Amino acid sequence: MMSMFCLRSRVIAMNKELNNNNLMAVCKRRGFIWPSFEIYGGVAGMFDYGPLGSNMRNNIVEVWRDIYKRREGFIEIDSETVNPREVFKASGHVDEFADLVAYCTKCGSAFRADHLVKEFFDNPDVLSPEELDAAFVKYGVKCPECDGRLGPTEEFNLMFKTTIGPGSARVGYLRPETAQGIFVNYPNLYRYNREKLPLGVMQTGRGYRNEIAPRQGMIRMREFNMMEVELFVDPDDKDWGRFREIKNNSITLVPNTGSAAMTMTVGDAVGKGIIANRVLAYFVYTTQQLLVRLGIDPERLRFRQHLCDEMAHYAADCWDAEVLLSFGWVEITGIADRGCWDLSRHAEFSGTELTHFRKFDEPREMEIDKIKAKHRNLGPKFKDKAKIIAEAMETKHPSDVKNGILVLNIDGEDTAVTGEFFEIVRVREKVSGERVIPHVIEPSHGLDRIFYSVLEHAFDYDKDKDYAVLRLAPEVAPIKVGIFPLMEKDRLDTMALEIYAAVHSSHTEAYYDGSGTIGKRYARMDEIGTPWCITVDYESLEGPQKGTVTIRDRDTSAQKRIPADSVSETIRSLLSGVSFNDL
Amino acid sequence: MMSMFCLRSRVIAMNKELNNNNLMAVCKRRGFIWPSFEIYGGVAGMFDYGPLGSNMRNNIVEVWRDIYKRREGFIEIDSETVNPREVFKASGHVDEFADLVAYCTKCGSAFRADHLVKEFFDNPDVLSPEELDAAFVKYGVKCPECDGRLGPTEEFNLMFKTTIGPGSARVGYLRPETAQGIFVNYPNLYRYNREKLPLGVMQTGRGYRNEIAPRQGMIRMREFNMMEVELFVDPDDKDWGRFREIKNNSITLVPNTGSAAMTMTVGDAVGKGIIANRVLAYFVYTTQQLLVRLGIDPERLRFRQHLCDEMAHYAADCWDAEVLLSFGWVEITGIADRGCWDLSRHAEFSGTELTHFRKFDEPREMEIDKIKAKHRNLGPKFKDKAKIIAEAMETKHPSDVKNGILVLNIDGEDTAVTGEFFEIVRVREKVSGERVIPHVIEPSHGLDRIFYSVLEHAFDYDKDKDYAVLRLAPEVAPIKVGIFPLMEKDRLDTMALEIYAAVHSSHTEAYYDGSGTIGKRYARMDEIGTPWCITVDYESLEGPQKGTVTIRDRDTSAQKRIPADSVSETIRSLLSGVSFNDL
Repeated sequence: MMSMFCLRSRVIAMNKELNNNNLMAVCKRRGFIWPSFEIYGGVAGMFDYGPLGSNMRNNIVEVWRDIYKRREGFIEIDSETVNPREVFKASGHVDEFADLVAYCTKCGSAFRADHLVKEFFDNPDVLSPEELDAAFVKYGVKCPECDGRLGPTEEFNLMFKTTIGPGSARVGYLRPETAQGIFVNYPNLYRYNREKLPLGVMQTGRGYRNEIAPRQGMIRMREFNMMEVELFVDPDDKDWGRFREIKNNSITLVPNTGSAAMTMTVGDAVGKGIIANRVLAYFVYTTQQLLVRLGIDPERLRFRQHLCDEMAHYAADCWDAEVLLSFGWVEITGIADRGCWDLSRHAEFSGTELTHFRKFDEPREMEIDKIKAKHRNLGPKFKDKAKIIAEAMETKHPSDVKNGILVLNIDGEDTAVTGEFFEIVRVREKVSGERVIPHVIEPSHGLDRIFYSVLEHAFDYDKDKDYAVLRLAPEVAPIKVGIFPLMEKDRLDTMALEIYAAVHSSHTEAYYDGSGTIGKRYARMDEIGTPWCITVDYESLEGPQKGTVTIRDRDTSAQKRIPADSVSETIRSLLSGVSFNDL
Repeated sequence: MMSMFCLRSRVIAMNKELNNNNLMAVCKRRGFIWPSFEIYGGVAGMFDYGPLGSNMRNNIVEVWRDIYKRREGFIEIDSETVNPREVFKASGHVDEFADLVAYCTKCGSAFRADHLVKEFFDNPDVLSPEELDAAFVKYGVKCPECDGRLGPTEEFNLMFKTTIGPGSARVGYLRPETAQGIFVNYPNLYRYNREKLPLGVMQTGRGYRNEIAPRQGMIRMREFNMMEVELFVDPDDKDWGRFREIKNNSITLVPNTGSAAMTMTVGDAVGKGIIANRVLAYFVYTTQQLLVRLGIDPERLRFRQHLCDEMAHYAADCWDAEVLLSFGWVEITGIADRGCWDLSRHAEFSGTELTHFRKFDEPREMEIDKIKAKHRNLGPKFKDKAKIIAEAMETKHPSDVKNGILVLNIDGEDTAVTGEFFEIVRVREKVSGERVIPHVIEPSHGLDRIFYSVLEHAFDYDKDKDYAVLRLAPEVAPIKVGIFPLMEKDRLDTMALEIYAAVHSSHTEAYYDGSGTIGKRYARMDEIGTPWCITVDYESLEGPQKGTVTIRDRDTSAQKRIPADSVSETIRSLLSGVSFNDL
């Protein structure tokens, strides 16, 4: 839900030492990212992941799983991308998920209306269609394409719309986030978790946003990838067991009080009331752990609290992880305490109870409303079925009465019973617990934005070598090891290919390269962030070093010899954190 | 592309010893699969993967990657699901990917028209709309819902349609297969592969088919998952290096000559001309390896050749992997030699050359057509630029001339040159190679169908235990190990939780369960196919067996004691193939 009701990521003009075009050129040339449908002229805001990008994106997802699934024990699901209208009516997207569009009356081009007047207003995205139309006149804003007259401005819903099945009866939308697929599955998930809280659920997959005029490359995509986590907690218990493990660790916050960025401990952030509660703070910090482990530079990472007017009205608190990129600070993850909003809305719109049964430590005597059968009326009408109906009735809750009617399932058939057969009475009873609507803590990650940010922070122009090196974290690098024969002859290539096959088939991505000088091959691997390279040379074949190969470290260019038959094992050790110096 | 132009999977009535509803009930109750949007009444043909299903599906994808990526060295990409119309105009889906729908004139319900007359025709899906309308009258077919009059029958395109961006200018479709995303990226992929063939590319992801009235659960989904492989080969080289490794292995084939199923070696199948060529046969056999490794019963697996009238007109040969399920033989994978169709079509529709440069062993003297500048006309018109234009012209190929015009890029600007400035001449020259359109070998897997088939073949009602056991292959099982304390007290639970945390965080899915009798807990794990269970008992805490736990084997119920601190390692050994007896 990271950007739906929130302010758009605010791109602040700043230094451009890293040329974003350089990086995208490398990405395209080397097979990280390709603009989609290029042979058909392309479609703005759409990108395909090439072989290296696809590997690297999978690696990022695995790190996310490592933290949420393996460490926290959360469960993962995969729900559908096409959803019926009802889902997004409840979530608010049908009514609220829109931008204002202005069409040129002459050439028909469409523009984000607020973007056209951004030089005249501090906050153009709060303007109404009428105000925007007036602004076009006042400031003489014309169509940027043909100089034609603009307007009138209208709302454009950003969901891709379609129909499910033949005819136009059933409207469907491509989901703008994966989160709703988790919320609508709450009854299944709660049962899977044996009706206990906390219940942590994660999902990765596609989200869609039919942008009016997407720019900024991978930052604003029409079809994008998300990693979302929805943690359902008891509304009265916003603590988190592991909080104490991280409470003394530091984090950089920009609170919405107007003060500058400040670095403090997570414990202080909660203690001083800056972050609303411990569980939210824990997952703000978890986000920092995730991003830094992926290779985001901690010096270019901060957590910015939503301003009061940008925070969703139901959210208790909301923080954006922002990273400094070549075109400014960009939001790549949102972490929100969404309160009971999502489950309440789906409960209301679906008529299904979406609650948690909170057991009391010991039964309490409470006044409660109950349904009581009117036996006098039941008997004459339902005869020998009266008893079974009365029993079924008394298992129901007053909230099950809809428009004065109670629907009972008797012997597999629905039987509707009107108000003359029951009454609602207030009684004092010992009760073992109560139903509450869980609150949702949501760390929602923009996967493509993270992917792109990791690349930018890893990008380094090596002046000595005079070429670009991607200093990717080894667990994120798409290829872990390049394997080269010094020359493609004299059995050097045979040996290198054997090593390649052994390594590549053992769950460690390897790349064989036999062409060009060794220097060029190292450069090619450096450019895609491959942490290590193996070279088979003549010493590998005979003499005192027979059976050994060289291994080279990307960042230091240091080289060592290791046994050829230990390459897989060595790379695995290095990946698990052993230092190159300790080989 | 598995089912596009092909006959629908033909479901043959047969024995129903396994009750398909039983299995789906288990799947739903235990969190493998949930019908989507249940709280909103559901949508036919849509399912969500629950926590166990999601794990298991990921495991299947990893086995597929293990074979294609790690063993064969193919590369993986991930392309967009929303595609502009141009892509599917070229692929043929805009014009051909349709079913015939009949609406009831009274209640408006929609039906697959051919399904309504299936009792009167052997092959109702070849009937035209007119023939179907006539059949409704002749046989008195009425609306199955309300008995109203049916018709008229119309074509319904099965792609989900949407628009890209504001306005209705740009039509987009949800892809019916992942394959087109590979074909349209051919120039990028070919460059990534350093302009060499064979070039093997794989993609897993969503496909969409807006079924008129989906039935048969996971066999016919509106939103489904695929694992597709597109192997580009030289049209004159349909051999495969590893063919000799498997040529003596057996496979069960149902050729389209009308003969019964026959089991033979892969080598014989090619030698006798039953399978068109070696590379296709290799990947038919690879499909068998994949499916059997996933747990498909080889006795309930066969490869059926497409009949002449069901094979796409461009396909050289096409085989379906069919498995016997509770409702008959169902196609779960298609393996086709698609010839040059896909690349030819996209080349034609996009105007982009999609070829391979096949180098000759040594240069050959050939007659070729070339563009030659008419210097006499160029000089007066283009003055000092004439020379640079003439040079640019002569790097072009006659096929670059469109409607008599040649577009040249001069100093970064497109310059169009008409026919008066050049001519096409035939010359004899030494040429180093020629351009050919690669052929495509396509193993296309229906991931959800495979998932479901694996579950059906693993499903076993254990009469002794009187409950269902899923005998899943360990590498496919969603949970590898259940970890239990004998009782949730006396530090048994503490020790069990410690073992759980150690195992679960080490990339081995574990499940902690402390409630109910041990027998019930074993049963719960058996029901979801967990191959092993660990129990912490009082002997684990003190006495001669202190520090050990029991490990139980799902299929034999055998138990042994192993050291508690070796649980992760033991499970890893078992997963790598070590037998329980050898522990």
